[in-house]
Amino acid sequence: MKKLLLAAAALPLLALSAPSVAPAQNASAQAEKLRDAALKDDVAFEIMEGLTTEIGPRLAGTEAEARAREWAVRRLKALGFANVRIEPYDMPVWVRGEERAEIVSPFPQKLVVTALGNSGATPPAGIQAEVVGFDSLQALEAASDATVRGKIVFVSHGMTATQDGSQYGYFGAARRTGPSVASRKGAAAIVIRSIGTDSHRNPHTGVQSWAQGVTPIPAGALSIPDAEQLQRMLKRGKPVTMRLTLTPRNLGTRQSGNVVAEVRGTDADAGIVLIGGHLDSWDLGTGAFDNAAGVAITAAAAKRIMDAGRPRRTIRVVWFGAEEVGGNGSNAYRAAHPNDKIVFVSESDFGADRVWRMDTSFAEANKPLADRVAQALAPLGISRGGAAGGGADVGAWVRSGVAAIDLQQDGTRYFDYHHTPDDTLDKVDPEQLRQNVAAWTAMLSVVANAREEIVKAPVTAAGQ
Amino acid sequence: MKKLLLAAAALPLLALSAPSVAPAQNASAQAEKLRDAALKDDVAFEIMEGLTTEIGPRLAGTEAEARAREWAVRRLKALGFANVRIEPYDMPVWVRGEERAEIVSPFPQKLVVTALGNSGATPPAGIQAEVVGFDSLQALEAASDATVRGKIVFVSHGMTATQDGSQYGYFGAARRTGPSVASRKGAAAIVIRSIGTDSHRNPHTGVQSWAQGVTPIPAGALSIPDAEQLQRMLKRGKPVTMRLTLTPRNLGTRQSGNVVAEVRGTDADAGIVLIGGHLDSWDLGTGAFDNAAGVAITAAAAKRIMDAGRPRRTIRVVWFGAEEVGGNGSNAYRAAHPNDKIVFVSESDFGADRVWRMDTSFAEANKPLADRVAQALAPLGISRGGAAGGGADVGAWVRSGVAAIDLQQDGTRYFDYHHTPDDTLDKVDPEQLRQNVAAWTAMLSVVANAREEIVKAPVTAAGQ
Repeated sequence: MKKLLLAAAALPLLALSAPSVAPAQNASAQAEKLRDAALKDDVAFEIMEGLTTEIGPRLAGTEAEARAREWAVRRLKALGFANVRIEPYDMPVWVRGEERAEIVSPFPQKLVVTALGNSGATPPAGIQAEVVGFDSLQALEAASDATVRGKIVFVSHGMTATQDGSQYGYFGAARRTGPSVASRKGAAAIVIRSIGTDSHRNPHTGVQSWAQGVTPIPAGALSIPDAEQLQRMLKRGKPVTMRLTLTPRNLGTRQSGNVVAEVRGTDADAGIVLIGGHLDSWDLGTGAFDNAAGVAITAAAAKRIMDAGRPRRTIRVVWFGAEEVGGNGSNAYRAAHPNDKIVFVSESDFGADRVWRMDTSFAEANKPLADRVAQALAPLGISRGGAAGGGADVGAWVRSGVAAIDLQQDGTRYFDYHHTPDDTLDKVDPEQLRQNVAAWTAMLSVVANAREEIVKAPVTAAGQ
Repeated sequence: MKKLLLAAAALPLLALSAPSVAPAQNASAQAEKLRDAALKDDVAFEIMEGLTTEIGPRLAGTEAEARAREWAVRRLKALGFANVRIEPYDMPVWVRGEERAEIVSPFPQKLVVTALGNSGATPPAGIQAEVVGFDSLQALEAASDATVRGKIVFVSHGMTATQDGSQYGYFGAARRTGPSVASRKGAAAIVIRSIGTDSHRNPHTGVQSWAQGVTPIPAGALSIPDAEQLQRMLKRGKPVTMRLTLTPRNLGTRQSGNVVAEVRGTDADAGIVLIGGHLDSWDLGTGAFDNAAGVAITAAAAKRIMDAGRPRRTIRVVWFGAEEVGGNGSNAYRAAHPNDKIVFVSESDFGADRVWRMDTSFAEANKPLADRVAQALAPLGISRGGAAGGGADVGAWVRSGVAAIDLQQDGTRYFDYHHTPDDTLDKVDPEQLRQNVAAWTAMLSVVANAREEIVKAPVTAAGQ
């Protein structure tokens, strides 16, 4: 990568983590020792490098995702994990086709566009229509059908980079629901300003689902410079005509799958610690940040626990399939394992930059456990935050009361690359990746070895 | 733009440029006054915004470049210039076609490629061949024909960003001559690592010319992340097979043209000050840095001189056509104007970031003139450098001894965008653009109004 964002707080503070001496602190000392060793980790980068190079893009339900599963099985077995296996499931598959946009008049030129997940298709030669622009999803919602009918809707509002990525939820609605709103009003198609924070001509794709009864229409995202270009054209006040060609296809039902591996625990009654990320990626980039990083970090940390001797609890690493297109892998996994005693969940799915905050969802009885994790993480520059929600793949367990920790990563530049062709290995900062592995190793060491029972948390709104 | 590179030195130092009082310094005082007013310029940005939005890409010899000429005439007339006109010429025209690259084995995935100027074409379905990689042009040159024959050559060496852009000359040889070297050795095609300094999936195109007697082959550039991906694959030691589709076409002879405008001088015998940039752009971006900036800066500065009253010398602003593909516009201009008394030339063609150095090519007799220009520029943070060469469009005049100044711009990020889809308006920092206009205004004020004769410089190696 070109611009290193150093995990500045991590290294100087390690001097504070002197070896513990009191016998009661043996477990903590072990966590600290493993944590500090993990700051030299190379396994996570090797997994990322291998997966992004040897497989590259791996769209859910495609042959590329199947190759990724085979790759994952080989790698996880080579790393020494137990019970490495693929658990298949079926799912509907959508794939990208041709993608072209051009302004026909008054300022003829090409624009860079990509289809959103589940987009409808234009005819092969495309459609041509006037563009009607809206500054926000709300403005589109407020528009009369007559304003929109037969036109190509353009929604231009843009998100801002923040450390916690919190603008994605709000502005992402233009992608998630904008297409259905436009279709209901009779639009010929919709193009949105990419939901991202970069200024490169790489559009951001992402899933959207058609609301009940809505007819799919072509739905794309313009790169941010192209969206700004279209805004400048519209501001001149003359009618702007676009030709748009998007020819994605639905392939019907195909097989996808989750890849599972385990670090065997010594105490089957203590329950399972389930961690992971997702193996699938969008098809435009090689899925480095999203989410080779997550599967690499979680596996590298679990391996460190395994190599240090069997933990009390079994650690189950799941590399979920088909997260990007709707969480099919997570849903299939829960359906297939209704009776597994999963007492703790955590996922990594926000890139490869440093962990800066620990959010938790524990029962009051497990407060001492949370305190010990926080103590092990503080020297890495990680503060305590609010309530853990668990993310797309493990969120359902959290919502049912299973204990969880979210190791929140710095998302300042995450939406520069997210779902774009630019999500590639060169963006990864190996030092920040290592800080992630150290944080996960410390957390797993404390949680998997905790002597107390890990109990269900009360289900609160924060976990919803 | 996202990351402002401030013209940090410019503003604080302006306090040093107190109004001159001595009568002999009237001309200098005028230059300083115009310079400081130009730091509030909006004309240059308006030209850039208009040209990049209303025309966008404008490849030499195409209908888009013709529209750009018509646009330029309208804009230059509206700004009040005299003798605004198009001077047409004919030229051979090459245009891009389909562009696709994919690794067939052992790691199937798409790569991002673009054709280099004058690339040969593959059949519509592409060609498929093994890739043979070289770390440098020199390594390719040293390779046996047997190593290369029938294969797709890949040259991976990469340039580094520097303030003066000086790595472009050395590493650019892989683009300029690599295709001919590969063809001579019997390669099926060549792809190079883009000659650039970014890490985005936007390849850098650029012209290359086939050496005498060499058969054109398909010649492309991979984006830098894609080139690094291919390097990682090759390092694994297994044969790598690529399918490459590039279908550019030669359209034969078409019309291009230069756009000319003047600020009328009071003294026809004092000779003409000829300045400009180039109107054409590569077709992938909207040609903001390269070179809407140059035509905008030079015209905005000339307008400021015009609006302050007629200068002694006529300032002729030329927006050259077809610079990118071989300097056809400049060649045609010189051929059409063999007897014009051009006493000074200067061009702007290195983006929109701040001027940091003044290079000169003057006869010894004109040293006082050079000193006065330097004095007017210093408060903008501009140092004196070495010998001026003049650049692609006015270099031939400099080589014949015509006096010249190069206002060297900060090129640290120039090759992040140069010849890529990313050369768009959002990258422009309006403050740095204004510093350019101020520097050009000061220089023009001094040079166009100089009372002494501007004489020919000795022709030295530095001007070659």
